[in-house]
Amino acid sequence: MQHRVVVIGAGFAGLQTVLGLKGSGCQITLIDQRNHHLFQPLLYQVATTLLATSDIAWPIRALLRDRKDVTTLLGTVEDVDRTTREVVLRSGERVGFDTLVIATGARHAYFGKDAWEPDAPGLKTLEDATTIRRRMLLAFERAELTENEAERQALLTFAVIGAGPTGVEMVGIIAELAHRILPREFRRMDTRKARILLVEAGPRILPAFSEDLSQYAAKALGRDGVEVMTGHPVTDCSGDGITVNGQFIPAQTTIWAAGVQASRAKDWLGAEADRAGRVMVAPDLTVPDDPAIFVLGDTAHVVSDGKPVPGVAPAAKQQGSYTAQVILARLTGKPAPAPFQYRHMGNLATIGRNSAVIEYGRFKMRGWLAWWVWGIAHIYFLIGARSRIFVALSWLWVFLSGQNSARLITQKETLKEP
Amino acid sequence: MQHRVVVIGAGFAGLQTVLGLKGSGCQITLIDQRNHHLFQPLLYQVATTLLATSDIAWPIRALLRDRKDVTTLLGTVEDVDRTTREVVLRSGERVGFDTLVIATGARHAYFGKDAWEPDAPGLKTLEDATTIRRRMLLAFERAELTENEAERQALLTFAVIGAGPTGVEMVGIIAELAHRILPREFRRMDTRKARILLVEAGPRILPAFSEDLSQYAAKALGRDGVEVMTGHPVTDCSGDGITVNGQFIPAQTTIWAAGVQASRAKDWLGAEADRAGRVMVAPDLTVPDDPAIFVLGDTAHVVSDGKPVPGVAPAAKQQGSYTAQVILARLTGKPAPAPFQYRHMGNLATIGRNSAVIEYGRFKMRGWLAWWVWGIAHIYFLIGARSRIFVALSWLWVFLSGQNSARLITQKETLKEP
Repeated sequence: MQHRVVVIGAGFAGLQTVLGLKGSGCQITLIDQRNHHLFQPLLYQVATTLLATSDIAWPIRALLRDRKDVTTLLGTVEDVDRTTREVVLRSGERVGFDTLVIATGARHAYFGKDAWEPDAPGLKTLEDATTIRRRMLLAFERAELTENEAERQALLTFAVIGAGPTGVEMVGIIAELAHRILPREFRRMDTRKARILLVEAGPRILPAFSEDLSQYAAKALGRDGVEVMTGHPVTDCSGDGITVNGQFIPAQTTIWAAGVQASRAKDWLGAEADRAGRVMVAPDLTVPDDPAIFVLGDTAHVVSDGKPVPGVAPAAKQQGSYTAQVILARLTGKPAPAPFQYRHMGNLATIGRNSAVIEYGRFKMRGWLAWWVWGIAHIYFLIGARSRIFVALSWLWVFLSGQNSARLITQKETLKEP
Repeated sequence: MQHRVVVIGAGFAGLQTVLGLKGSGCQITLIDQRNHHLFQPLLYQVATTLLATSDIAWPIRALLRDRKDVTTLLGTVEDVDRTTREVVLRSGERVGFDTLVIATGARHAYFGKDAWEPDAPGLKTLEDATTIRRRMLLAFERAELTENEAERQALLTFAVIGAGPTGVEMVGIIAELAHRILPREFRRMDTRKARILLVEAGPRILPAFSEDLSQYAAKALGRDGVEVMTGHPVTDCSGDGITVNGQFIPAQTTIWAAGVQASRAKDWLGAEADRAGRVMVAPDLTVPDDPAIFVLGDTAHVVSDGKPVPGVAPAAKQQGSYTAQVILARLTGKPAPAPFQYRHMGNLATIGRNSAVIEYGRFKMRGWLAWWVWGIAHIYFLIGARSRIFVALSWLWVFLSGQNSARLITQKETLKEP
């Protein structure tokens, strides 16, 4: 009988596991809540009108259509039955496994302030991205309609909470939109009056970078019209605005980029987890008391060289490849691979659409050349020629025309009036 | 004081009016419920996974950014006050006009069976297109999950009601998806077992075309695996299926392409209208008792050469240009242009993605060459170099790879299980 591998989650880690098991002879089932694999590193560009949703997402089935050994299921996992060795779907279906790989990612976390979520959406899914885009564009539309100056200023205030790469990348594009692209399109107001705030509780933005690059980024953002506020956490957040350092700032659009919480895998497994809900795994990425169950990517607390591995795409992909190797070694009776070792691929973040900061060990780079290196690297990592061509052309178009193209407001909220 | 022109609706007719008034010195306000102009003739390709939403829609503001004489408002019109000469928005704002142009289009109509709408969505907006796409793709996903054979067959049955160009164009692509593209991607079932029905109450499909082309299209669809059912209206429609000629056909996905109803303009104006709700207009497209109010496009019942003008894009554009001419003539004191005359640009419809039928007077064309003529014509009519490049590349990609690319399931419904 074939060895049955069930992989939950078709993100970077899960998909890479499936790709690594090509030719293994296993019977693989890949389960995801969505029908698409998402290239999360560029999701902020969908949220900020630079790219279309279809540029950075691919139907999972289409990616794996030539892999007859893989069955793809669109479904939501409710639980894992470790006794019967089955994954339980919400539909009631049970999928048996010999080896289980859990790579269900993370959602944004509000540090116990879950009530903030409706007013400060985070950015993890395509729906999140189109929600942020819609709110942002509608804020400009409503600002054009109102005759109340205070309301207009609140509508033109955009607060991004959290200054990691995602937060920094978003404010850069929003500032460009407000200060350079939209002014020509509105007649009753000046969109250059928009305030774009980047709020960070820690002492500086881009904390994963070295201090000089972090300072460079803060200065570059300041030049582009972003107000960088560091050293104070947001203490309150509502549909009307945020409170920072005791001061209330009216803001109709708030975006959350401050923290993540792992998916519910720890509950399914009854496993030990860290504060962010990530399952503590053994050096070979398995659950300590069950070598047939792997947990990887943003769902796992993985230690390499004595340090926790960051929740970034290259780490997830490396873990997926490693997991496939471990499974293959077991099936062929080869010795187990050495414990998982994370190879850091550097830190990258864009600032607006003409600048970036890159750090790889002692190598540092910043400015427009860094943007091009960043762009070429990301095009390389996209899946398939079509996406590469379309994303490259989209960027080229923005670069030449100065126009962001993905600026449609869709879905029901469109019809609400101010 | 400047002459104030208010245009309601930024579809083909409204936008063309605004473009025609360039340099007129009027103060123009363009009001639309959406932030984008939509290229409706290709909307069926968004619904059937060939194109992305951003390929065929453009932010209205961006299109008119260099027209300082135009103010664009995102808003819903509630009424027209003919006494005070104001347009009343839902927000309460009132916009005064000297000349009013109403081009608010049409919605699908269910001939008094409005209860059918939730189960048989029509295709007029981008949301309609993504709704149809989501339902169609989810039907395949659910069919893969079920173990009940009858349920699976109902999930794999797609009924399109109405065999005008939109209905014909949709079934062609759905058949291709089910019979040629998806079979390689599903493991538990054969998507080639899908039934694709085209149901038409009238005696033949594509009634606007001559009989031989209509027969050719029906044969071509049959070869592609579409069941063409003519001569009987649908007498009932629910989430479980449709009833045709007394027979119930289980079908989980039904799409409505059978009729339209004009927007509410007739109520705003208290004007006389035809059965489809279109305002009866004078030969110069104005309301008979009010020469300062024009009604055009799908909202108007226009007669040219003794025949009603069809609700197609070229007719709407011609009416927009004509309206601008009439307004300009009045402002400059020139004699009024001759009554509106419709120039028929021919009938076109695609069958699948390799064939089309074209008719222009006595000239007829069919097959793959007609598809290319159709494709080039539509790329020509798109707005801007970017859309032309992206749509042409999308088609080229589908042609070369055999893969439809716009196959993402997004929005909340994703998470429901069968």
